[in-house]
Amino acid sequence: MHAVLDVPLSAPDVPTRLRAYLDDHAPTTPCLLIDLDVVRANYRAIRAALPEAAVFYAVKANPAPEVVRALVVEGSSFDVASTGEIDLCLAQGATPESLSYGNPIKKAADIAYAYGLGVRRFTFDSEGDLENLAVLAPGSRVSCRFIVDAPQSGTPFGRKFGCDPDMAIRLLARAADLGLSADGACFHVGSQHTDPAAWVSGIAEAARIARALGECGVPTRSLNLGGGFPTGYATPAPPLEVHAAAIRAAVAEHFDTAPELLIEPGRAVVATAGVIRSEVVLVSRKCDTDTHRWVYLDIGRYSGLAETENEYIAYRLLTAHPATPDGPVIIAGPTCDGDDVIYQHTSYSLPLALRAGDHVDILDAGAYTASYSSVSFNGFPPLPTLFVG
Amino acid sequence: MHAVLDVPLSAPDVPTRLRAYLDDHAPTTPCLLIDLDVVRANYRAIRAALPEAAVFYAVKANPAPEVVRALVVEGSSFDVASTGEIDLCLAQGATPESLSYGNPIKKAADIAYAYGLGVRRFTFDSEGDLENLAVLAPGSRVSCRFIVDAPQSGTPFGRKFGCDPDMAIRLLARAADLGLSADGACFHVGSQHTDPAAWVSGIAEAARIARALGECGVPTRSLNLGGGFPTGYATPAPPLEVHAAAIRAAVAEHFDTAPELLIEPGRAVVATAGVIRSEVVLVSRKCDTDTHRWVYLDIGRYSGLAETENEYIAYRLLTAHPATPDGPVIIAGPTCDGDDVIYQHTSYSLPLALRAGDHVDILDAGAYTASYSSVSFNGFPPLPTLFVG
Repeated sequence: MHAVLDVPLSAPDVPTRLRAYLDDHAPTTPCLLIDLDVVRANYRAIRAALPEAAVFYAVKANPAPEVVRALVVEGSSFDVASTGEIDLCLAQGATPESLSYGNPIKKAADIAYAYGLGVRRFTFDSEGDLENLAVLAPGSRVSCRFIVDAPQSGTPFGRKFGCDPDMAIRLLARAADLGLSADGACFHVGSQHTDPAAWVSGIAEAARIARALGECGVPTRSLNLGGGFPTGYATPAPPLEVHAAAIRAAVAEHFDTAPELLIEPGRAVVATAGVIRSEVVLVSRKCDTDTHRWVYLDIGRYSGLAETENEYIAYRLLTAHPATPDGPVIIAGPTCDGDDVIYQHTSYSLPLALRAGDHVDILDAGAYTASYSSVSFNGFPPLPTLFVG
Repeated sequence: MHAVLDVPLSAPDVPTRLRAYLDDHAPTTPCLLIDLDVVRANYRAIRAALPEAAVFYAVKANPAPEVVRALVVEGSSFDVASTGEIDLCLAQGATPESLSYGNPIKKAADIAYAYGLGVRRFTFDSEGDLENLAVLAPGSRVSCRFIVDAPQSGTPFGRKFGCDPDMAIRLLARAADLGLSADGACFHVGSQHTDPAAWVSGIAEAARIARALGECGVPTRSLNLGGGFPTGYATPAPPLEVHAAAIRAAVAEHFDTAPELLIEPGRAVVATAGVIRSEVVLVSRKCDTDTHRWVYLDIGRYSGLAETENEYIAYRLLTAHPATPDGPVIIAGPTCDGDDVIYQHTSYSLPLALRAGDHVDILDAGAYTASYSSVSFNGFPPLPTLFVG
């Protein structure tokens, strides 16, 4: 499925460079092309923006072995969601000490498996998981995820993860009683969060949790700020420095002693490193007087564009045609499935000259795409990934 | 991924039989177990309910080779959505004559590929696809899909497929001009359609299209009624006979000469033949006073339960515990993804005694499950399928 290809390094305009590569090599579409130089550059930019934080790359964003290997070389740590991701990271040279098992929903057998491989950092948000950790991962560093109110997330978590902050205090105290290292609190503002203020309220709450625990004789030492750092898709997003400044100010304001900071960026590391090349399968109108054309691509919600569910993520699209004259379109995927419509409420225009067989390039598509692909829905294969850099 | 297992045939209670099999064999969870006897029985029941219609099984509902092979033996024809599904059916012994390429969104190369393998039935809904068919599948039987208003579908198609009925008349006349066999009109009321009246308006419109074409000297001969025949999940659905009676009456009322009827059932063939066995990963509350428990399963939206998007399909769930005492739950999948929540708006109760490690069986799960699985999202593998019968 994967192939590493060789091109010159460090072109300034990522989409231009990747698209030129795709033009030259003409791979079968659809495919995702990842520029590993951009992955590395994004990682370094995050380190530079928030040097006081340890970076745990959220593997789920793009679990390609090539991406993980590049980040191992950069010195990254890794946030893993499953034993499958643990195996993947270790196979690419990550050390067990660099892994944090961040999924609070874990089978007992999976905790034991991780511990057996040397993983010693875990996140929990419930009594049941905590009790399993005490038995199956004794002495490990654990942090408790609490629910933070972050309404501005592009893809909010709701209440699936975390617990009430007061329950987090109780559970962290119990973790210490059970012989675990009660590292501290953690929260996640939700993916693709564009408002820096979201982190501020979480940091204030985490400081309250730390103080309450300190008063009970349970000192904590770390604060895991999760991920959620946004990528600018069709709508620009604030640069990482804005979030970093807000985080730094909030930590200084609310904590008497600065905690060890951890962050778990995923999208911010890989999104801008990828371009999906797709092909137009069909352009049609539903009746002769329709103002909108339907443009059907050879990629859709079940073969990599899962984040277009409810049109959450509005990708930038590029064709080889000049931008004008263009006209309004509804964009859909190739399956016999009525839900496989990519954009019908978000306003998109594409060139009037667009025809079946033309390419449509989907920019900033390096995160949460290929690994979401269905195995075979409608008989279409998963999205393959190619690499440069 | 697949294994064919051997058990006695013809047990009357499908869930009981399949669950007993799962208890005895204790496969790794999650997994889907399909009873091929039930697939065969469902196919025969459909034939019996509407013997005047040729059955083209919608492969997308469950493309397991074992299912396709069983239906080849039964004499079924097949509705295919891609070249991948064509290859699959031919490999399982289907003849090219028994295949209908029902996806109106096709690359030119895929039309040529299908025609080269002997496929001679195609559905279209646009000028562009029709022109490709004329060149690349000369002389084939083509039907034109029009948009039917069917608001009661569980998973409506919207306007992705089909064209305005007047455009269908124009395109079918043009098909004849281009040397294709203008078979007739087709429509699809949308998946999981519980209101028999939905077919009636489509049949009336199809008859109008057929009359208009006849008056232009373009006789048509068939009517493809699509699929959409419902399965009773948590909410019962009308039996197939109710839909068959409505269809029969509407055809008699609106057509002077009865057309050849085709139907494309998918869900109705395989849904009740399958049970997914899952395991409880965690039961928790978000604060000590919560009335609802969160129940996390080892299967979710990205590993087979894709049709729980927006809680479209409310599956029946069974545990090994007595039904009472039970209490309200929110049910979620195992990934670190806030959208991987299965039921939070649909009211579900599960036993208060439910614990991590217990099984939860998901009934009538034979359709639109395993083939939707993501390749590796969050490091979790796709849903495997086992077979009995």
